[in-house]
Amino acid sequence: MRVLVALGGNAILQRGQQGLASEQRANVQKTVEQIVRMIKAGHEVIVTHGNGPQVGAILIQNEMGRAAVPAMPMDVCGAESQGLIGYMFCESFSNTLAREGVTGRDPVCLVTRVEVDPEDPAFAHPTKPVGPFSTEEAAKKRIEETGETWISDAGRGWRRVVPSPDPMAIVEKDVINDLLEKGFTLIASGGGGIPVIKRPDGQYEGVEAVIDKDLAGELLAASVKADLLMILTDVPRVAVHYGTPQQQWLERLTLAEMESLEKEGHFKAGSMGPKVKAILRFVRSGGERGVIASLDEALEALEGGAGTQVCRN
Amino acid sequence: MRVLVALGGNAILQRGQQGLASEQRANVQKTVEQIVRMIKAGHEVIVTHGNGPQVGAILIQNEMGRAAVPAMPMDVCGAESQGLIGYMFCESFSNTLAREGVTGRDPVCLVTRVEVDPEDPAFAHPTKPVGPFSTEEAAKKRIEETGETWISDAGRGWRRVVPSPDPMAIVEKDVINDLLEKGFTLIASGGGGIPVIKRPDGQYEGVEAVIDKDLAGELLAASVKADLLMILTDVPRVAVHYGTPQQQWLERLTLAEMESLEKEGHFKAGSMGPKVKAILRFVRSGGERGVIASLDEALEALEGGAGTQVCRN
Repeated sequence: MRVLVALGGNAILQRGQQGLASEQRANVQKTVEQIVRMIKAGHEVIVTHGNGPQVGAILIQNEMGRAAVPAMPMDVCGAESQGLIGYMFCESFSNTLAREGVTGRDPVCLVTRVEVDPEDPAFAHPTKPVGPFSTEEAAKKRIEETGETWISDAGRGWRRVVPSPDPMAIVEKDVINDLLEKGFTLIASGGGGIPVIKRPDGQYEGVEAVIDKDLAGELLAASVKADLLMILTDVPRVAVHYGTPQQQWLERLTLAEMESLEKEGHFKAGSMGPKVKAILRFVRSGGERGVIASLDEALEALEGGAGTQVCRN
Repeated sequence: MRVLVALGGNAILQRGQQGLASEQRANVQKTVEQIVRMIKAGHEVIVTHGNGPQVGAILIQNEMGRAAVPAMPMDVCGAESQGLIGYMFCESFSNTLAREGVTGRDPVCLVTRVEVDPEDPAFAHPTKPVGPFSTEEAAKKRIEETGETWISDAGRGWRRVVPSPDPMAIVEKDVINDLLEKGFTLIASGGGGIPVIKRPDGQYEGVEAVIDKDLAGELLAASVKADLLMILTDVPRVAVHYGTPQQQWLERLTLAEMESLEKEGHFKAGSMGPKVKAILRFVRSGGERGVIASLDEALEALEGGAGTQVCRN
């Protein structure tokens, strides 16, 4: 099977960790070991990943270094995070595949742009907080000088918010398809991809925004005609009534069943919402099956024995 | 012809500029316009580039942000710079190729690792200054705490130095060859590549070092069997007795002629030395022709009418 694996931030940096390169490398290594089990079982894998903690750190470094070197815009910082994370994945994949005796599946990480619609309503309503907290005074100065949007965040200070538009097209999809055909293990569209718009003159232009990595992962899965979209996270399954006495893990559902649960409002925007949305989109648009599962049970989930499985019928 | 274009730092950021993203994008755009002239003339192009100012800025940001977020090691910073610069090149290539009506030559930037020898004598003698200047006190503390090498730099303060080992192998060479076969315009091995060693157990490990981008470019050119290695810089030709009344521009030389000029010590380590060394290696190891030329005369130099041309016979 051709499998798109979308990894959450915890696959690279866990809550409570400092963000050291050594911590990130160790987490990536564990993650890659799970994915190599899939590759050994004969599957073609394309990996996408979040970049929250990494681009967050880069934005803080940009802010703190501002007196000495110009800060880069969000899209450029996102590109930096693709290099940072992609390199760690390449290193772990090369080493783990070699150790396991797997050949012909070399990793490759591509700088990946994702086209968004300049008319996307998200641009009028930035909602995604990014970068460091700031004082009200400094935030208001920035609003005035740059036109950025900053909001007061519940007692923790002021923070910049950027739009989170819907992904429309993976700019690099042709090369990604070619490389999958050749057997490479791809790392692509990191952090939801670098958001770009197409101007009226047909030219691409990077924009300061954040694309949800699960929705971008779904688009990537559809763009490579993946058989399976797997969203790997730190819980074993999706639940309804999560954290209440009525909590119930979801094991196997049809598209229609999952759609009605979504309509009932079970999945919150800040947690399972985008993951469920991505899975529904994938199956709705012709994908065979979508899975949300724990990273530790990746192969079992691929084989249908773990996680929340959503099938067309 | 298949042409490897190695770009100096001035192709991305010019001396005296601040380092703004807008400056870098404008320079990259001008550079790409020159390269697209080659592509329109029917040539296959693979681009590599320096990253001095960009990785320098990232290192400064890492240093200044250290109180809030852990600094990344040099190899990881190099990977970040590949993302940053590669993204800008992809954007400019996509737009310029589209505007010029060129199809089938889409750009793609790969995170690229370059293997070096752990026994390379450079590791015993770090020579390449990197990152910000520091006080003697802070530098000595760092030496003690980390084992890094720092040196006093002629009145400007103390600065870290890292090894500059010789490139041995492009880890991603198979995928690069596949993509060239498919017609893509590649951006690869940025900043000389991310330096990695192979440990005795066969596993790759990133190292804190800087590989000369022209020597890495030569290795890349040889790895893709390029017909031509072009090193583009900000002077029209290589000169002997540069800056003296005896100065003489070099136009067309045989390998043997250039080798004897090199032996006479005409080319300084800090300027033309590595460029001439790279060209000589390329032609010596079977390359048809090597050229050092001005970015503004890229196509003319490719066609033999500009720059310093070194041919086998």
